[in-house]
Amino acid sequence: MRNDQREVNELRPITITPNYITHPEGSVLITVGNTKVICNASIEDRVPPFMRGQGKGWITAEYAMLPRATADRNIRESSKGKVSGRTMEIQRLIGRALRSVVDLSKIGERTVWVDCDVIQADGGTRTASITGAFVAVVLAFGKLLENKKIGKMPVTDFLCATSVGILPDKTAILDLNYEEDFAANVDMNIVMTGSGEFVEIQGTGEEATFSISELQIMLKLASEGLEQIIGIQKEVLGELKERIGETKAN
Amino acid sequence: MRNDQREVNELRPITITPNYITHPEGSVLITVGNTKVICNASIEDRVPPFMRGQGKGWITAEYAMLPRATADRNIRESSKGKVSGRTMEIQRLIGRALRSVVDLSKIGERTVWVDCDVIQADGGTRTASITGAFVAVVLAFGKLLENKKIGKMPVTDFLCATSVGILPDKTAILDLNYEEDFAANVDMNIVMTGSGEFVEIQGTGEEATFSISELQIMLKLASEGLEQIIGIQKEVLGELKERIGETKAN
Amino acid sequence: MRNDQREVNELRPITITPNYITHPEGSVLITVGNTKVICNASIEDRVPPFMRGQGKGWITAEYAMLPRATADRNIRESSKGKVSGRTMEIQRLIGRALRSVVDLSKIGERTVWVDCDVIQADGGTRTASITGAFVAVVLAFGKLLENKKIGKMPVTDFLCATSVGILPDKTAILDLNYEEDFAANVDMNIVMTGSGEFVEIQGTGEEATFSISELQIMLKLASEGLEQIIGIQKEVLGELKERIGETKAN
Amino acid sequence: MRNDQREVNELRPITITPNYITHPEGSVLITVGNTKVICNASIEDRVPPFMRGQGKGWITAEYAMLPRATADRNIRESSKGKVSGRTMEIQRLIGRALRSVVDLSKIGERTVWVDCDVIQADGGTRTASITGAFVAVVLAFGKLLENKKIGKMPVTDFLCATSVGILPDKTAILDLNYEEDFAANVDMNIVMTGSGEFVEIQGTGEEATFSISELQIMLKLASEGLEQIIGIQKEVLGELKERIGETKAN
Amino acid sequence: MRNDQREVNELRPITITPNYITHPEGSVLITVGNTKVICNASIEDRVPPFMRGQGKGWITAEYAMLPRATADRNIRESSKGKVSGRTMEIQRLIGRALRSVVDLSKIGERTVWVDCDVIQADGGTRTASITGAFVAVVLAFGKLLENKKIGKMPVTDFLCATSVGILPDKTAILDLNYEEDFAANVDMNIVMTGSGEFVEIQGTGEEATFSISELQIMLKLASEGLEQIIGIQKEVLGELKERIGETKAN
Amino acid sequence: MRNDQREVNELRPITITPNYITHPEGSVLITVGNTKVICNASIEDRVPPFMRGQGKGWITAEYAMLPRATADRNIRESSKGKVSGRTMEIQRLIGRALRSVVDLSKIGERTVWVDCDVIQADGGTRTASITGAFVAVVLAFGKLLENKKIGKMPVTDFLCATSVGILPDKTAILDLNYEEDFAANVDMNIVMTGSGEFVEIQGTGEEATFSISELQIMLKLASEGLEQIIGIQKEVLGELKERIGETKAN
Repeated sequence: MRNDQREVNELRPITITPNYITHPEGSVLITVGNTKVICNASIEDRVPPFMRGQGKGWITAEYAMLPRATADRNIRESSKGKVSGRTMEIQRLIGRALRSVVDLSKIGERTVWVDCDVIQADGGTRTASITGAFVAVVLAFGKLLENKKIGKMPVTDFLCATSVGILPDKTAILDLNYEEDFAANVDMNIVMTGSGEFVEIQGTGEEATFSISELQIMLKLASEGLEQIIGIQKEVLGELKERIGETKAN
Repeated sequence: MRNDQREVNELRPITITPNYITHPEGSVLITVGNTKVICNASIEDRVPPFMRGQGKGWITAEYAMLPRATADRNIRESSKGKVSGRTMEIQRLIGRALRSVVDLSKIGERTVWVDCDVIQADGGTRTASITGAFVAVVLAFGKLLENKKIGKMPVTDFLCATSVGILPDKTAILDLNYEEDFAANVDMNIVMTGSGEFVEIQGTGEEATFSISELQIMLKLASEGLEQIIGIQKEVLGELKERIGETKAN
Repeated sequence: MRNDQREVNELRPITITPNYITHPEGSVLITVGNTKVICNASIEDRVPPFMRGQGKGWITAEYAMLPRATADRNIRESSKGKVSGRTMEIQRLIGRALRSVVDLSKIGERTVWVDCDVIQADGGTRTASITGAFVAVVLAFGKLLENKKIGKMPVTDFLCATSVGILPDKTAILDLNYEEDFAANVDMNIVMTGSGEFVEIQGTGEEATFSISELQIMLKLASEGLEQIIGIQKEVLGELKERIGETKAN
Repeated sequence: MRNDQREVNELRPITITPNYITHPEGSVLITVGNTKVICNASIEDRVPPFMRGQGKGWITAEYAMLPRATADRNIRESSKGKVSGRTMEIQRLIGRALRSVVDLSKIGERTVWVDCDVIQADGGTRTASITGAFVAVVLAFGKLLENKKIGKMPVTDFLCATSVGILPDKTAILDLNYEEDFAANVDMNIVMTGSGEFVEIQGTGEEATFSISELQIMLKLASEGLEQIIGIQKEVLGELKERIGETKAN
Repeated sequence: MRNDQREVNELRPITITPNYITHPEGSVLITVGNTKVICNASIEDRVPPFMRGQGKGWITAEYAMLPRATADRNIRESSKGKVSGRTMEIQRLIGRALRSVVDLSKIGERTVWVDCDVIQADGGTRTASITGAFVAVVLAFGKLLENKKIGKMPVTDFLCATSVGILPDKTAILDLNYEEDFAANVDMNIVMTGSGEFVEIQGTGEEATFSISELQIMLKLASEGLEQIIGIQKEVLGELKERIGETKAN
Repeated sequence: MRNDQREVNELRPITITPNYITHPEGSVLITVGNTKVICNASIEDRVPPFMRGQGKGWITAEYAMLPRATADRNIRESSKGKVSGRTMEIQRLIGRALRSVVDLSKIGERTVWVDCDVIQADGGTRTASITGAFVAVVLAFGKLLENKKIGKMPVTDFLCATSVGILPDKTAILDLNYEEDFAANVDMNIVMTGSGEFVEIQGTGEEATFSISELQIMLKLASEGLEQIIGIQKEVLGELKERIGETKAN
């Protein structure tokens, strides 16, 4: 039994509140257990200098935590004057993952800024960010469709993420909370599409290693969990969910 | 009539949700109209180096906005690698205001870190931060009382803040929203205690000036509004409100 | 009696030396008691990007102290690699104050850079900076007039600043020196125009509060002091003083 | 056929020159095709503050490229004043990988600083860094053994890394050079131990995805390559290779 | 004839005003023609960490220019967030030069902070800084002597600096002003002691070179000028000048 | 006898390996005794903004050390977020020296970036950098000649550098290694051209001074050494050496 009474293959409760903040084109509050992340997607009508004149768009992500999202207060990265390696790694991951399911040639010379701000953390903040950011991005494109700025939904597939891990007693578990993450020998983040393809696999043994059979068990656990998460995303998106993939289809 | 149908002396609706985030010792979500700020108070069991060995505590504040709290997306201060002058000015103001109603000699060598994070902005974010932070700080001290780490509530009086201003047509108004703030000739932030004393008056004419009689009208408007705000704080604080001032009384 | 034998309503001796540094368009050395500030106004023939194409100008200020302007040596902000909150607050204040008495639409697309460098500090450096900077700016515009780059003096009124405060024994005093500033319960900086209107009021009780009647006493003390300071400015400006307000008049 | 005439499962030629730089405790120059990295391991007789008093050591890594290691000159990170996200990600990976095969409780309160400086880049710089750094670290511990500062080799297993990828034509290939890396749909870095366990798997589809069967093909390719690399490491290490694992064995 | 009517071997007028700023232990305003530098020497009763426990002191220098010391306004280094290479080079030079004539083993574990702040620049700011800083340092040690904190003047010899150069027409000149410095092919700064020994020679041909005979002519010009400057220093120092060298003599 | 058995006027063994790194237009590895520096010259087809439209080019240099080039590990300047004064001084010196023997008006609007990266340090890294960088720059221009981008070799003369110094026992020595440099009273770096003219003389007495006769002895030692170094440069450059000076000749 896990420390929060879950089965090894059981996700924490997930809620996604759409249109959480009023200013952004797309905005959600996602909660995964006690982890809470505000995901905002902003559309800017230009691309970074290195992409100008190519007729295509770009998606970039930023990630941050409120100082007291965690049990101990963290120093603000703005006060330190620099962004930590962990933060950079996470925001690069989120951006890369989202770009894998958006046809950037269909959004014009626009940049989608995705901001994932963790207001409360209990493990899995980067995977919750990806899952929530996907919905925020679809909502933002929904607004562009509504305003006839683009003709088709440029999102080619669903996208979500979760974590799996192996505890010191060799149990493989799905969706680690903070305490489990801290204890685990192996921690793996998986980003997957609606068609069950991998976008990103990041498996790490901190002061530990893992075998190929353990890898396979973890991938299976993850796949099952991710399927459920896509179900939740679909519910939140309502009619917009039908339009995902319409670009690909043509 | 104002752009949101309010009377000139009418506050926007205010809500204060206590215990909003689970980790901090004190936490509230304050909403003032469309302005929403998470105010967290964290207790650290030591003081900054310049205060060690004096047997007293310290209160310091940090203020930030999510990039998309505003109509246009702002660049994160952590990405820019430095904190703006505006941010510094606001966090110095919040800290100074809170220190004026806390008897720092009664909290031991502890630091109270107050984090005000604006998740949605529509004018008055600094005054909403002070009003909300006051409640968060009282809740945090409430926890210290509960854990018998201190014997008396070290907060000597209530504290809250609002803004007043003068529109180009010379109307004086209470609690400016973003549009009004942008239009106003004069903008004044007032921080007041429960006993009606001023803690801070910051009146500014940007490319404009104001007379002593205009000042008096604004101060009166502010006083009436602040009295109502203290009423809301009292309601949220429940029994804790009775303990405010008990230090002073001795 | 005050620590330097002044009456409560007595200013320290003020001298303003015009054309102190040769390179800037306008330059003064102002001394207020032992406080000495070099105020230089530089004219640049363009405006910052956000103002281009609007046909109007901009005024911005920077403030700094020599490391040994104070009793203890301060670390240079250039060595620390960042500007302190206090410095930012002061330079924002100086810029705002100057802009309130200059008709920016009458100076073309030019930027006035005002540099206030404190070479010796004994309290009141920000108010001395405003008083001196005003003269430097008028001198700089005088040069533009001389060179026929502008046709009328764009300064609409006189501008100066001083401080008032309340000592622990409740005495209200004018023009605080460092020792008084350190001891005071309440410290208030007032910026006023030649016609007696307020530009800025910043009253702060650090770990203290003040009542409305105390506020009124302080405002009165300030008004009397500021009138004398304008007298000194007029003397220094010679014939140029006649041209102040000529823009307004039309 | 690949652009450099290799078979799909063929590594580039690898050389490892031990004791390349004289000052560090361990130093190698590793070349993998045209990629050249200087890997230096330095022993410091203390640990970072957060680890003091625990009687164990720490390994940390830094990674950098000379500005002209690449086809176009890069701006130095020291000139930019900050380390890029890519650099941070790589140095975190190298450190984590090395820590997984060192028993930190056996090295006393010492820090091993690993510096991987790429002097010429042609793809696979992070994996070459790990492979080379492992040898440098073993050499450094060899020096500690020689000087009787530690009694047993604290390295528990061999460690090396390589990349695999999938080209747009769906061919899976081993050890990508720069041109291949640029063209590939999927890029995966694998870090493995001498006993064939994974330490790290990082598979990324940039604007692409991959299936579980493609994953399995890539893992197999990688395993075969990594076995050969360990053979090269063993040759370079000479007698020291016998001591790897002696800690684990007890 | 030179652009300011001087002979080739003629110094500009030099004045040194002692005790210019009240707070520092030693302070002078030095003017060399139109170049004006405030030189302050501050005594701190401890040394930097790398020197603790050795029973000797340290001298370090900082150099800066007011933004409008020059014909065009410079951006403040505090605003840029970093100190330029030129500034660093100059402050290293000043510190090194002063240390060459102070017996650091005779000042206890104290640091002398020397601040050279150029308020008006017309060439030769670094040499004027050295000449002025020397006097400020002697004054500061004079204060330590007065307070019986040290028993003997630790300054072993006089120290001053000037520049020499070669114009495009091959004329060698002494003490270059800004216009001459800009035009010169070769620019050389010489720091010399009272006994005629060199402390520092920095000769530079920017896009030009110079022969050994040109070098000798320049050194001779410099020596003659430096002798005159020492005369001025002696006059300013009054009785303190007698104590210079008393440490050496024993 | 010196600590490495050299005569006082004996250089350490020098090797220069051309085309050391493949990507740069010009690249050498220079070793001077145990000092090893990679010197890369990169040609960029544009100049910095302040030089645009003048039809001439620019040469700029950067210098760095690997963290473990030295006996103790240094913190990376990229990690510290700023470049040290010493580094800036050296890179300014290298750039200035190279510009003195290149006719910038003959290279079009191009920038030559010279990177000197010390991989192993044993004294004399700045002079070895200049000697090596000169060869790298000639090789880079050789490539431009080959590609007919320029018609004549723009290098007007040979250029190299070495150090001389005076030990505490008053012996003058040539080409100081680290230990000698540390011990010396006086340290002088000399940059000279093929025709025996000085480009730069930087002589420094750290807590010491030197006489004019000592200066002359040092200059003579240096001249003899530099002549030998030019011999080595000529050998490495092969046929390209004939073209040096052809611009000047016309």
